[in-house]
Order: sequence, then C-alpha cells, then structure tokens
Amino acid sequence: MQVTEGLARFLLAHRPEDLPERVRHEAKRSLVNFFAAALGGCRNEAVEILLGALTDGFGPPQATVIGRSERTDALTATFLNAVSANVLDFDDTHLRTVIHPTAPVAPGLFALAERRPIAGAALLHAFALGVEVECRIGNALSPGHYRRGWHITATCGVLGAAAAAGKLLGLAAQRMGWALGTAATQSSGLVENLGTMSKSVGVGNAARNGLAAALYAERGLSGPDRPLEGPRGLAAVMGEGEDLASVVQGLGESWELMANAYKPYPCGVVLHPVIDACLELRPKVGDVERIERIVVKGHPLLRERADRPDVTAGREAQVSLQHSVAVAFLHGAAGVKEYGDACVNDPAVLALRRKVYAEDDASIPADAAVVSLRTAAGEMLSAHIAHARGSLARPLSDRELEAKLRDLAAFSAPGIDPERLIDALWALDQTNNAAALMSSAVASAK
Amino acid sequence: MQVTEGLARFLLAHRPEDLPERVRHEAKRSLVNFFAAALGGCRNEAVEILLGALTDGFGPPQATVIGRSERTDALTATFLNAVSANVLDFDDTHLRTVIHPTAPVAPGLFALAERRPIAGAALLHAFALGVEVECRIGNALSPGHYRRGWHITATCGVLGAAAAAGKLLGLAAQRMGWALGTAATQSSGLVENLGTMSKSVGVGNAARNGLAAALYAERGLSGPDRPLEGPRGLAAVMGEGEDLASVVQGLGESWELMANAYKPYPCGVVLHPVIDACLELRPKVGDVERIERIVVKGHPLLRERADRPDVTAGREAQVSLQHSVAVAFLHGAAGVKEYGDACVNDPAVLALRRKVYAEDDASIPADAAVVSLRTAAGEMLSAHIAHARGSLARPLSDRELEAKLRDLAAFSAPGIDPERLIDALWALDQTNNAAALMSSAVASAK
Repeated sequence: MQVTEGLARFLLAHRPEDLPERVRHEAKRSLVNFFAAALGGCRNEAVEILLGALTDGFGPPQATVIGRSERTDALTATFLNAVSANVLDFDDTHLRTVIHPTAPVAPGLFALAERRPIAGAALLHAFALGVEVECRIGNALSPGHYRRGWHITATCGVLGAAAAAGKLLGLAAQRMGWALGTAATQSSGLVENLGTMSKSVGVGNAARNGLAAALYAERGLSGPDRPLEGPRGLAAVMGEGEDLASVVQGLGESWELMANAYKPYPCGVVLHPVIDACLELRPKVGDVERIERIVVKGHPLLRERADRPDVTAGREAQVSLQHSVAVAFLHGAAGVKEYGDACVNDPAVLALRRKVYAEDDASIPADAAVVSLRTAAGEMLSAHIAHARGSLARPLSDRELEAKLRDLAAFSAPGIDPERLIDALWALDQTNNAAALMSSAVASAK
Repeated sequence: MQVTEGLARFLLAHRPEDLPERVRHEAKRSLVNFFAAALGGCRNEAVEILLGALTDGFGPPQATVIGRSERTDALTATFLNAVSANVLDFDDTHLRTVIHPTAPVAPGLFALAERRPIAGAALLHAFALGVEVECRIGNALSPGHYRRGWHITATCGVLGAAAAAGKLLGLAAQRMGWALGTAATQSSGLVENLGTMSKSVGVGNAARNGLAAALYAERGLSGPDRPLEGPRGLAAVMGEGEDLASVVQGLGESWELMANAYKPYPCGVVLHPVIDACLELRPKVGDVERIERIVVKGHPLLRERADRPDVTAGREAQVSLQHSVAVAFLHGAAGVKEYGDACVNDPAVLALRRKVYAEDDASIPADAAVVSLRTAAGEMLSAHIAHARGSLARPLSDRELEAKLRDLAAFSAPGIDPERLIDALWALDQTNNAAALMSSAVASAK
C-alpha cells in the first residue's frame, strides 16, 4: 500500500456528510478551545515580537489576526494565529502523541475562508481530515520521533495543515500528494526550543507552510510520489524505522479528534489533578492563613516534572507544583492571571509555596493525585482526584469550554463579544460563509 | 566548548578587515556565479508557480526579484531569489558536503541591503561568515546527515542565512545565538524531494527563514542556549551522533569559501569531464554525421548515475550521459538551451544519443573521463580529461564566470545589461551602497 497515495485518495473521496455527527461536534469543541487559546495568547510577548518583526512586510489585509486590530495577508495571519493559539500551552492535546492538533491546522482554513467563499460544514470537515492526517502520522512515528527530539506538533502539524487546506481547495489526488510532499520537506521543529519563544516559530511555520504547500500544489508545483514512505522520505529520515502502514488502515472508521483533550488550566498536565484537589479542599479550609503544611502525593512524574518551590517567572510557574497549589488555595483559580509574573512574585503566594511538599506514590496514575493538609490547629483535610478535569475520562463540558473562551477573551482581548463568537462556532455547520465568525474574534470597530 | 556560543562570539568579533583578500575575492566569484544562476533560473516553471501562488499576498515593494519586474517584501524576494539561484542545479557546490552554499545565504543580505544602507564590504564579509557557518556545520554532520536523507543545502543553509543576516544586523552574541536557535528549529528538507519542483521550497525557505530568524532575534525573540549541541538540538536530532567541536576549531584561520566550486554546465557533475572531452574532440571530427560509435570510459559512478539513453525531458537530460555527449558534438555547447525540452526531443540529438555507450573503469577518478569515437571510415579518435573544468583542480576563471553570467542572462533575462552587473559585483567592496547593483539585475524601465 502506498501511504501518500492512500491518504490523498481518502482525502479526495471523503465527503462532509460522511463525517459522523459526534466527530463534527468534537471539531466544534476543538475550535471553541482554539479561539479561547488564541484570544488568550494574542498579546503574548512572543506574538508581539513576531508581529513587530513582520509588520513592515505585511501583504494586503486579507485575513484576521485573532483578537487584534491588524489584518494581514493570508499566510502571515495563518502564522500569527497558530502562534497565538499555542503560545500559552493552553491549547488542545492529542494525548497519545502529545500533538497539539488544532493550532497548526485551523488557522489556514479560516484564512482561506476569508479569501474564497467556504461553507462552515466544509471547513469543519476539512479540519477533521487535517487533524486525522496529522495525528495518524504522529501515531505511526510515536514514541521514537518525539523522544529523539522532534517537536511533534510542528513536524506533523505541517502535514495536517496541508491536507486540510488541500481539501478545501479541492485538490485532486495527485496534487494532494504533491501538497503532502511539499509539506514533508518543510517539516521541522526541535524539542530543544521548547520553553523559549522560538518554539512559537515552529508551530507558526507548521500552519503557514502547510497552507503554502497546498496553494503551491493547486498551481501544479510537483512533489515526489512517496514523500512520506519513500527511501529518503519523512518516515525514513525523521522516524526511527517505523512502518507507516497504520496511517491508512481504517481511515474514516475511527477518528483521532475523539481522542482530543482540552486543558482547564494553563500549566503542565500533571498538575491538573492537583489543582482539582486544592479547589475541592479550599472551601473546607476557609482562611488560608490556617494552613501549616500541604502534602501532594502523585505519580513520580509529578515530582520529576514539577517540584519547583522557587520560581520567579510565569513560564516556570507553569511547571511548578508549589505555585499551582498556592494560587489554587489563595485565589480559588489557576488561570492565565495566576501564572502571570505579577502573581508569581506576590509575597502571599511565595509564603504559601513554602508550605507545599511532594511525595511519590507509584500506585497513583498520572491523571490522579491526593492532596492532604494540616492546619495550625492540627486539623487534617484530604482530597483525592481519580481523574483530572480535562482528561479523556472527565472531559471539559461544552459549557466549560465556553467559560474558558470567555475568561481568556477577558484576559487579553476585552474588546470582543465572546457570546457572539461562541454562538457562531456552535452554529458553524449552518452557515454558507465560514469566515463570517472572524468578525466576532476581533474588537468591533465602532 | 559551547558550540553555539563559540560561533556567536566569533561572528560578533570578526571584522571586515580581518577577511583575507583571497576570501573576499572568492566571495565575489560566488556572487557572480549566484547572479548568473539566478538570472538563468528566474523564468523557470517552479519560480513561475511559486511566484504566482504568492503574488496576491506580496507585501510592499521592498526588494528586487532578480531578473524580473516584480518587487516584493524582503522575505518573499529572499525566498524567490534563492529558488531562482538553485532551480537549474547550476549554482555553486561545496564539494565536501555537497552543499550549494550561496543560494540560501546571499538573497537575504541583498534584501536587507535594499532596506537599510549597507556597505558592499560589510555585505561581502557577512556573506563569507554565513557560508563559513553553513559549511562548517555541514562538515561536522557529513557524511551521515545527507546519507540519511537530509537535503543539506536546505538544512544547513538556514543556519548560514541566519548567521549572515545576524551579522549585518549587528546582533550581539546572545541574540546571535537566538537567531541560530530559531534557524535550527526551522531546519528542514528531504532528499526524497530532489528531482521535483518541491526541492525549491526547501532552498527558498532556508534563505527566507534564516533572514526571519535574525529579524526576530533582533527584536528579542529568545531561543535555547545550545540549539546546535544541546541534548535535543540540531546535531542530536538531525545528526548521527557526530561531535560538533570541529565547528568552532580554527575559526577565522581557514575559510570554506576557498573550497567552493562553480559548474560550467547545468548538469550532473560526473558528466563535466565527459563534456570537456567531447568539446575537445569536436573540431577534429568535423561533420558529426561521420560518427559511428562513441564510448565513454569513466568511474563506475558515471554509469550508475547517468547511463540514460532514452530521455524526453530537460530534467532527465541533466543526468543523461548520452544526451550530454550528443549535444556537445552537435551544438558545441552544453548549456541551459541544450538541456531544454526542445533540444532533448530534437531528432538529430536523439539519433546521436543512440551511438553513445558507457564503460566502467574503476581506475579513473570521478572528475576525469576518456571519450573515444570511431568514424564510419574506421578512424579512431580519443580525448582524456584528467580534471573537469570547474573542479577545484581546474577552477573556472573570473572571465569564465563572467561568460556564464552573460549566457544565462541572455537565456532568460535578456532585458538586463550584464556588463553593468558584472562590473558592480567585482567592485562591490568599493561601494557604500551594496543594494545599488540590484538595479542592474533587472531590466531597466525605460
């Protein structure tokens, strides 16, 4: 079986009405989460720097930069929106691969929809197909690919972005294969760059270059026949000897979108059950001053990744157990504000962080945790979380996703009307003009 | 020794006046060859397709697209000029790594020079430094990196482009390191894509993304401390366990530009001594009709790579021994016209191709060949070439490089005045405005 050709034929043949309703709904949920994350990230320092460096080369105002007043050419908007959606590490996660699927795939589709009339149902369909390609290739290359040091969101994202855009452009099978080939030769992104602003360039390029690959293929830019499975193709060069046959097995029968998860807190996923437990305990404690000592028991990964009592910047606090516990008790929340530099350096938070200790318990799964505390009066309180909010066993509800979008819009895009955007996203399959909702993702010019 | 930091400090400290005169002259020779190749490639189908797909998103007319009338934003012009310079496989070759060094590095420097005033000597200096970084990293990763399937011109080119642009921007050491880090996370390009138009996207991106990395770093976009040598950095992920220490050994003492070679013919380098031999024999043969049989003896690589009697497209003819021999005898030339589709399908060429045979001789080096022919009258003629024109043992002269530029300009940019461009390139270190010569690389608007 030819993998590239198999994917291309599937993408060509699959129709919007073939998409199961539950997958279509999950696509909408992913997009609600995408706009939430992009609105929250759109004023981040990395976005400001990239936008500043690109401003004097902006093309015509073809597409919306989510949450902002600038309009740019389609490729630049695609780049910037992917960066905004991923920069806070608050976007979605395909847990098996640790791909953040939506940031690379969605932006190019909305940019295209602002250039050519596209129905909402067609956009949702192309988005689901793009995520499918991205995550199936990621599955096939996992775990060796990420372990070697490839930032899998970027490396596989460019392929999903090309597939999705190619579908919207109506590429026939050969040209779809060329689009995948031009995407493959642009696949890049190093784990070494995570934790620095340059991470964002990899994710932004995945979105931009995937769209570009489809636009080039539309005009006939040729690629190799077997860019994914050939002897010097993606898997041979960027994999560890894996077979790609699984990429085309059962296409259209299972959907990777159904394994997508959404974060309730903008921090390392191992911290999520800990925060849940703290929020459960908080009303029972009453005055936080009463707390003498807090002990968090979790899977050894928790201590390995997040035992950081002394942090001074938001970026570090996102992987600090002590900080996450402190803000959950003090503020009853662990959102973008609580992981900002100001909160990280607040003396009250600092004082409470000093009272937090971690203990390993290998019998506790990674999405579970037990938090116990002792008050000055000697009272003992404890909470056990079996599955964190946002895990696949306990997914965020549609209402919780809406609340996330409202919170993040209020955080850095207060001029927008989140209700209008939320309504438009849930009704996306009802509109003949998918791009219309982009006007709700920026402050209205009054 | 920290590799990234060592490179960054060297780049910061090195001054134009530290560049040896012979290196400065070789830099000019590389640029003459670059403009020759870019003028020859600027109307190639791949360039037309890419330019067509990008046109409606062009930013303001900041920079020149070599050989054409369009002006675009700096990043897009950088992309297109790198594509033009490499698309014919007629650009320069750093033989040890098989990197084509100039196409990724030079375009961003000229685009910058069109935006900010830059002296010619500073541009030549930055160019030499960029090629040094690109080829030294290539040396360290060779031969495993290319052998695995990485298109080394693209993967290492982006680092050279970032270093060169960073030098022109005056980046301090930390930001230079960030530029290299943002370049590393964009490093991509698969050998599988060679021989298709999508090759060009890898080379174009190397130039564009290297410039972008430097522009982002200038504004403070942070990167990792050790993007090249860190545990999940470039060498660990894209190498085969090589040590990068050699990258920073003897910096400023030896210069990789001195190992740069320029092609006299736009075809596979194994064919060059064969063409030389045919051109030497041609006057002795007189009427080509007299030829009954031609036997080419060469290193086994020659037959392995180029024994292709039946070709129908220019792209294949570039690696056809039979076609190269036929046009050398029939036309006394093996230039871009002789590798065009029309010439490939000319019945006279086809007839002569049928008379050409290859024989292996492992005692013949790869840059040598022996061509023998028998006439219908039974006469035997033979020519032995010990080193091909354009090899390091027999480099093209400055005059031959000038002639190459004239030929290629006449081929696809007949409106330009090649003499003005040639004069400006040799005098580049004398001007305070390096960008001025770009006006000679396009047809003058009369």
